[in-house]
Amino acid sequence: MSGQQRLEGRRALLAEIRRAGRIPRIDLAERTGISRATVTTITADLLREGLIEEVARESGSRATGRGRPKVDLKIRGAARLIAGAKVSRQSVSMVLLDFEGTQLADLEVTLDRAVHAPEDFADMLGGCLDRLAASIGRQRSEISGFGVGIAGVVDAPRGFVYWSPSLDRRNIRLGPIMRDRIGMPVHVDNDANLVAVAEKSFGLGQDHSDFIVVTIEAGVGMGIVIGNELYRGTRGCGAEFGHTKVHLDGALCRCGQRGCLEAYVADYALLREATYAGGADYDLEGLLAAARAGEPLALSILQRAGRMFAMGLANLVNIFDPELIILAGEQMRFDHLYAEEVIAAMREQIVQVDRDPPEVVVHEWGDLMWARGAAGYALEQVSEAAVAGEDADAA
Amino acid sequence: MSGQQRLEGRRALLAEIRRAGRIPRIDLAERTGISRATVTTITADLLREGLIEEVARESGSRATGRGRPKVDLKIRGAARLIAGAKVSRQSVSMVLLDFEGTQLADLEVTLDRAVHAPEDFADMLGGCLDRLAASIGRQRSEISGFGVGIAGVVDAPRGFVYWSPSLDRRNIRLGPIMRDRIGMPVHVDNDANLVAVAEKSFGLGQDHSDFIVVTIEAGVGMGIVIGNELYRGTRGCGAEFGHTKVHLDGALCRCGQRGCLEAYVADYALLREATYAGGADYDLEGLLAAARAGEPLALSILQRAGRMFAMGLANLVNIFDPELIILAGEQMRFDHLYAEEVIAAMREQIVQVDRDPPEVVVHEWGDLMWARGAAGYALEQVSEAAVAGEDADAA
Repeated sequence: MSGQQRLEGRRALLAEIRRAGRIPRIDLAERTGISRATVTTITADLLREGLIEEVARESGSRATGRGRPKVDLKIRGAARLIAGAKVSRQSVSMVLLDFEGTQLADLEVTLDRAVHAPEDFADMLGGCLDRLAASIGRQRSEISGFGVGIAGVVDAPRGFVYWSPSLDRRNIRLGPIMRDRIGMPVHVDNDANLVAVAEKSFGLGQDHSDFIVVTIEAGVGMGIVIGNELYRGTRGCGAEFGHTKVHLDGALCRCGQRGCLEAYVADYALLREATYAGGADYDLEGLLAAARAGEPLALSILQRAGRMFAMGLANLVNIFDPELIILAGEQMRFDHLYAEEVIAAMREQIVQVDRDPPEVVVHEWGDLMWARGAAGYALEQVSEAAVAGEDADAA
Repeated sequence: MSGQQRLEGRRALLAEIRRAGRIPRIDLAERTGISRATVTTITADLLREGLIEEVARESGSRATGRGRPKVDLKIRGAARLIAGAKVSRQSVSMVLLDFEGTQLADLEVTLDRAVHAPEDFADMLGGCLDRLAASIGRQRSEISGFGVGIAGVVDAPRGFVYWSPSLDRRNIRLGPIMRDRIGMPVHVDNDANLVAVAEKSFGLGQDHSDFIVVTIEAGVGMGIVIGNELYRGTRGCGAEFGHTKVHLDGALCRCGQRGCLEAYVADYALLREATYAGGADYDLEGLLAAARAGEPLALSILQRAGRMFAMGLANLVNIFDPELIILAGEQMRFDHLYAEEVIAAMREQIVQVDRDPPEVVVHEWGDLMWARGAAGYALEQVSEAAVAGEDADAA
């Protein structure tokens, strides 16, 4: 067995054990096509390294014969600790997972400012990691990997942030800076991409090879899964939806350009209209309440936002023809964008063929779910490092 | 060697021989990682089947030793005949290729009508195939496969046409209908997809894994290559660009919807403006000439078309972040869309990061190049059938 074959065997077997939950060795051989002898060798290594463990076969799962007691293999949760964070303007949400992906702890921290110097950003999150670990009597140094989701334009494989509303400067090698200051591998990605990873790994996208996730918060984000893989574009700038243009020379966007979708559907865009067109001094909650009460100006503002959003979604369908679109966000607050008339308007603006349009589902995510997505991304990287024997054994 | 291994070996070796042009057996083993013994066995089969041939080593290509004369392997052009057609409103363009991809003949036929019943469409193209084959003293029955590019929405793997401006009805199993009437496998796809296949196979996309082709004729088409593969979407309705919306409730499009990009940049859209807004009775050539002469109304019409086109392109860049965008069409006629100010306007509307924007190149295609794309698609299918031993040996 060459080094490359051994690596591929380890990767395939660990992935299959993870997928199965609990599985006998003989089924591993069948499902992966790897010989029984090689399965025995590799799983012995994985057991010795503490990445997997043997558990007694659950009764009924497979007929047991005589001889030695039958066992299944499973991922050993205690093998590693993995953290994930979602950083928003006002808060940080974090989760701590074990190697099985079981959530051990969570933490929500309110921030006193929205924009940070990169080093301060790293130190702030390092402190949060200390608190997160301490909440279950562990230490930051026991954590093997940390996934971080932020808004902005991120080249994830390099850990490079072209721009983020959370950072006070552009073009930051945030991954390496954080790794040096926090003392563990840090995997940074655009937050909407991490939602797509989470939907693929343990959400509504598990059974779909091609789907799009649209996230709605202060901005509009997107993650694209094509052929079961996240699509990032060639510079890491792909899957940008909020700044696609829906009107030539249209409304001014915070990005400095005109006609961006966000300039019609984001919080600030709604309030701009409410304040200047109507003279009313709304905040967002007030505007939403006024619309629910049937106030014509408020209704008009939200309805146009919905129609612009529908048009943007229709363009995505025309371009990608996905199986599924997942709208992920805080359900109650963005009801006007999730409304049935918005989805209906989208369906009217796609190319009409005699087959059903893509399914559209609304998936309410709390910030902890975003953090779980970030942790899931880090778990993939930690698993890969463990397969390659590149990490220190934290068990 | 299992049947599956043998099939994969045949596929890999034929592909490598095609890529290399001429190649010694020993290099085949090195480049594919297939053992020398297996290369010998499989190439002997391919030689016996007439799919490849031996040619004397060109001097200087590799040091020759003593012993039997050194030979290279190459694809045997005479092994198969493959045809491709591009069907437009006014004409059919066709090419005939040999198994090496060398063009043996071409044909351009003017059509007396733009819309056809599916059976008439098949018979018309069957007649064209007779003429194409006869032009080099061959017969239609000697052709192994036929690729057809048409405008419209096509689910290529099924040969199913949801809608095409060339057909008098919707939802046609055009591939099977044509196969039955013409007597050979027929591979139908959207014409812009075939341009993307051609750019990938023998055009400007050969060295790029992720690029977009935008075609401009009477309509605006798109082909997307992601990870070296054509991306078709899940229903075959993907990569639709001309009917993405650039204006909410905007100009009426021929498709019946409003605000489509085509409703601002297609021929009919330009003439609609010229006729109704200015009172002038232009045809397209007249409008373009007037714009070149600096006539303000004509200039205004073309400039807005350019700005809308730039906005649509910017949206594609924001979504895909491709390495390369290829604008393919009849150069002279659509100069106003290929203009440097259009590309500059596109660059201003993409997400700004401190890395170069995607390269944009203009590739002038005649209709025969579109037909070559269709033939290239058929050549892939014929090759695969030959590898699998599924076709009658036409040699």
